Amino acid sequence: MESSSASKQTVAFIGLGSMGMPMARNLVNAGHVVIVWNRTPMPEAERAANGFESAASPAEAAARSSGIVITMVADDVALEAVTLGEHGLLKALGAKQGLHVSMSTVSVQIAAEMAAAHTAAGCRYLAAPVFGRPDAAAAAKLSVVAAGDAADIAQVEPLLKAMGQAVFHVGPKPEQANTVKLAGNFLLMSMLESLGEAFALTGKAGVDARQVLDIVNGALMRSPVYENYGNIAINKRFDPPGFKLRLGLKDANLVLAAATAAAVPMPAASLVHDRMLGGVARGAGELDWSVIARLVAEDAGLK
Amino acid sequence: MESSSASKQTVAFIGLGSMGMPMARNLVNAGHVVIVWNRTPMPEAERAANGFESAASPAEAAARSSGIVITMVADDVALEAVTLGEHGLLKALGAKQGLHVSMSTVSVQIAAEMAAAHTAAGCRYLAAPVFGRPDAAAAAKLSVVAAGDAADIAQVEPLLKAMGQAVFHVGPKPEQANTVKLAGNFLLMSMLESLGEAFALTGKAGVDARQVLDIVNGALMRSPVYENYGNIAINKRFDPPGFKLRLGLKDANLVLAAATAAAVPMPAASLVHDRMLGGVARGAGELDWSVIARLVAEDAGLK
Amino acid sequence: MESSSASKQTVAFIGLGSMGMPMARNLVNAGHVVIVWNRTPMPEAERAANGFESAASPAEAAARSSGIVITMVADDVALEAVTLGEHGLLKALGAKQGLHVSMSTVSVQIAAEMAAAHTAAGCRYLAAPVFGRPDAAAAAKLSVVAAGDAADIAQVEPLLKAMGQAVFHVGPKPEQANTVKLAGNFLLMSMLESLGEAFALTGKAGVDARQVLDIVNGALMRSPVYENYGNIAINKRFDPPGFKLRLGLKDANLVLAAATAAAVPMPAASLVHDRMLGGVARGAGELDWSVIARLVAEDAGLK
Amino acid sequence: MESSSASKQTVAFIGLGSMGMPMARNLVNAGHVVIVWNRTPMPEAERAANGFESAASPAEAAARSSGIVITMVADDVALEAVTLGEHGLLKALGAKQGLHVSMSTVSVQIAAEMAAAHTAAGCRYLAAPVFGRPDAAAAAKLSVVAAGDAADIAQVEPLLKAMGQAVFHVGPKPEQANTVKLAGNFLLMSMLESLGEAFALTGKAGVDARQVLDIVNGALMRSPVYENYGNIAINKRFDPPGFKLRLGLKDANLVLAAATAAAVPMPAASLVHDRMLGGVARGAGELDWSVIARLVAEDAGLK
Repeated sequence: MESSSASKQTVAFIGLGSMGMPMARNLVNAGHVVIVWNRTPMPEAERAANGFESAASPAEAAARSSGIVITMVADDVALEAVTLGEHGLLKALGAKQGLHVSMSTVSVQIAAEMAAAHTAAGCRYLAAPVFGRPDAAAAAKLSVVAAGDAADIAQVEPLLKAMGQAVFHVGPKPEQANTVKLAGNFLLMSMLESLGEAFALTGKAGVDARQVLDIVNGALMRSPVYENYGNIAINKRFDPPGFKLRLGLKDANLVLAAATAAAVPMPAASLVHDRMLGGVARGAGELDWSVIARLVAEDAGLK
Repeated sequence: MESSSASKQTVAFIGLGSMGMPMARNLVNAGHVVIVWNRTPMPEAERAANGFESAASPAEAAARSSGIVITMVADDVALEAVTLGEHGLLKALGAKQGLHVSMSTVSVQIAAEMAAAHTAAGCRYLAAPVFGRPDAAAAAKLSVVAAGDAADIAQVEPLLKAMGQAVFHVGPKPEQANTVKLAGNFLLMSMLESLGEAFALTGKAGVDARQVLDIVNGALMRSPVYENYGNIAINKRFDPPGFKLRLGLKDANLVLAAATAAAVPMPAASLVHDRMLGGVARGAGELDWSVIARLVAEDAGLK
Repeated sequence: MESSSASKQTVAFIGLGSMGMPMARNLVNAGHVVIVWNRTPMPEAERAANGFESAASPAEAAARSSGIVITMVADDVALEAVTLGEHGLLKALGAKQGLHVSMSTVSVQIAAEMAAAHTAAGCRYLAAPVFGRPDAAAAAKLSVVAAGDAADIAQVEPLLKAMGQAVFHVGPKPEQANTVKLAGNFLLMSMLESLGEAFALTGKAGVDARQVLDIVNGALMRSPVYENYGNIAINKRFDPPGFKLRLGLKDANLVLAAATAAAVPMPAASLVHDRMLGGVARGAGELDWSVIARLVAEDAGLK
Repeated sequence: MESSSASKQTVAFIGLGSMGMPMARNLVNAGHVVIVWNRTPMPEAERAANGFESAASPAEAAARSSGIVITMVADDVALEAVTLGEHGLLKALGAKQGLHVSMSTVSVQIAAEMAAAHTAAGCRYLAAPVFGRPDAAAAAKLSVVAAGDAADIAQVEPLLKAMGQAVFHVGPKPEQANTVKLAGNFLLMSMLESLGEAFALTGKAGVDARQVLDIVNGALMRSPVYENYGNIAINKRFDPPGFKLRLGLKDANLVLAAATAAAVPMPAASLVHDRMLGGVARGAGELDWSVIARLVAEDAGLK
């Protein structure tokens, strides 16, 4: 095929958590050379089994790449560390006039700061956060929300498509993608709160929760998300967590920071923030964030 | 077939609004004799064209029925009027030991009071509110949420199925059905608020609302309800209304009354109640309740 | 003195709870004949010791009065019962073209309904709810908020002044007084919530609550109400209750009903309503409503 | 007198805004030499008239002082700039093993960071934010909330008392003082919201706002703060501002950041945050923060 050789890249991939690992693996599967770095080093046997090359620092990974670095890390602090830190990727990427594809869920503010820092360093920055949980990452079914320069997105689109089923381009400023990602996570947490309240109300009326879900989702919302989270709530499967409450709280903080910066009052976001904060304060931070339903129920004296 | 003649009934149908009219018509289509009464009398030509018989009062409609009365009226006050009022249906129905199928969206409290009143009068009361808008009513695709005595529900199930695609039996006490109906409407109004906030946040970031909806619904919620209301919000098609904001506020009041009675704190319901109340105060009461998105946007200084 | 004989009245007094009892006693102290009725009859010895006459029903009390009936009862239902019930006061008062002074904390709606019912019955209705707790009632230091016809208020002002230190006339419609009373109670409950949040925040920072109160009240609010409730919260003296949480919840419901009727979104009122509802759900309904501070603290994982 | 010569100090004072100016003047009045620095330089004539010495930078002011620097600046960013910036005070103060008295309203987080930075630089840091508006500052009637090392506080207590009427020592960690200051500002903004809602409710009932304030404050809260802000709200004197809404929003953000860090859900703080954010979004940011009352009223369709 005409573009296959051209499209094979040597990509630096920083961050091998529950999302980053399957994403990097899909790049290997697509035929790319993937040089990984993770804060907690990966055992040699595991690295080899996954077909990764490894680097001693983000800087080295960037230096050995063909000019593309993908990051998938926990938060703003981690993104700053791997980018601007002592052995961070920025200088090496600048030397190559390369491109940083930042796929983490981070703040709107840091996205803007990162974009400026990369420009100053002579390289480029894209935000490309994703929707989907680890199973979707493993199946290369993530939805990628990208923002930045259109040519930059076009350049890495084959890589993004190796990890996801759809790539959306939402605008020229990287922080626009982060805003959309945060808006999506807000819709999820808000849904968890509402569903929890609906279950508490009908539960006190003596109606079976499963039937409530069958009706309100079956007849009304018809959403796999309501179905999925509704079932977790009904079965109280909050452990092991798919997405931890304390990470949900982190995202709520990012939502509210973005809302304050943009002067958008978001009372429903404030409400779920306070709900999750109370859950963390009462020791539920390591459970799945659908534990919101249990917190709502406790407030109603249930259980 | 053995039951076809047995299943043809003479049914009294009280309330011919935007929902009641197509529902009654579907009963005619199913071969039943339908004796209607509406507060605003229907012109003779229209009555005949629809194949209805007509009565001068709810009492007369009940008296001429084979013992089944269906009501589909605006609110608690209307339900009380057509049932307990001077020419109300209760006495006539009691004389026949008949069955009142109450399909309106009314309060949990009045459902319990009605059940007691019917027992005292020697007849029976079912609550069978529905999910679905007028187009679903016309297509006989309503979802019916029924509660009450199982034998009573079995008796009228053929009638309910002539109007809806599914009949759920959620419990022995009529008010249980009303609780589930209110929980469903609460999920809708709560979704409108959340979606409005998500649009306001991404809108201020300069992202196109249609694309936001494509992403957050397409990749996440995958719900026809988000799709439908999202489109109304984006296109600002709040007039003509499908469901008026002031009726949404009525339902929010019913939700909060049920929540207070059951001691279930529902802060998300309080929030949307206050949102809709502000909308009504500022003159938006006659618009579609998806105008919530516009109210949220105005609060953010948009437009 | 010129008016002394004229001002001595025979007054019916309905409702001898923790407020009504000291209020009625102050009328006796001022030289009036006081005919009492209470749902739970008062022992004869106690009645005599207090200098009350007694009646077998509200109707009898009204009939034997010189045309003035004062009511101080628990809620809307009780007010309706003693006024419109089988042995209620209305008919007898109508026969005398008398005046009903309604001092209970009741809904805005029932105030309007009562006014209309009294007019229809040929007599008059004043709303005169009070600010002050039982100790203020005993000391005749209540603040009376009166609304209704100015001549009617003038007629009973000496009676009101025998029970309170100040009488305010806020308007011609009885429900105006109830609205002001509810607004005042709302300010109190809202203050309890805010103070609780302030204590929780500073408590987690390791600052002594007493010092916080000394500073924020001493330097800022300088209010005896903050001082008093702050001390109750700090010392966790929620039992015995001065004013029960479930009565606070009742008032919050009245506030929100008034707000909905007037189309005034009151999110702070919604918030404290939900807070108190959660407290009642979790078993704190019989404690003093300042237990709100403990509910806030529990939400923060304190204690 | 024995201590007078000992107590005369040469003090660096950074930040001459509406608060800093009268505070610095009171230090001059108390006999101290005051070397000032302000971002916007003060005209020579004004400097001389006030009896200040002036410095070209925070660093120079600190270097010429006897080891005491007081800062009174706008926010975290300004505090960082005058302390850690190129010509910031920290290095010079470290060289003198001096003491930085930070009186600004800043975040809990920066207080902790500043304390650590000063220790690292060989000098000391106290937090001593104040309650009181410019007129209280002019009258030396501020309330000073101090936290840090007890000996350090004792050392500067004469200076603090030259500016305020009371000095509270709330704990050994500087951030404790900032937490108390933020809690106090939260009580104020929360009171503005509640008062606004009470006015909107009673206003729609046709009761005069002045009378409402006379009653609810006179009979209940009896607080000069309610009195003062109530009057501003009634008279709609939002301009010129005493304290701008956008500064109130800044403080609400600091409150919520502290609440999140400490895991204390503060829904009333979230509510007023969202209220003020909406006000800023709609153009009211430069008005007095008591404009909250107007925002509440607008939401109710008033005016």
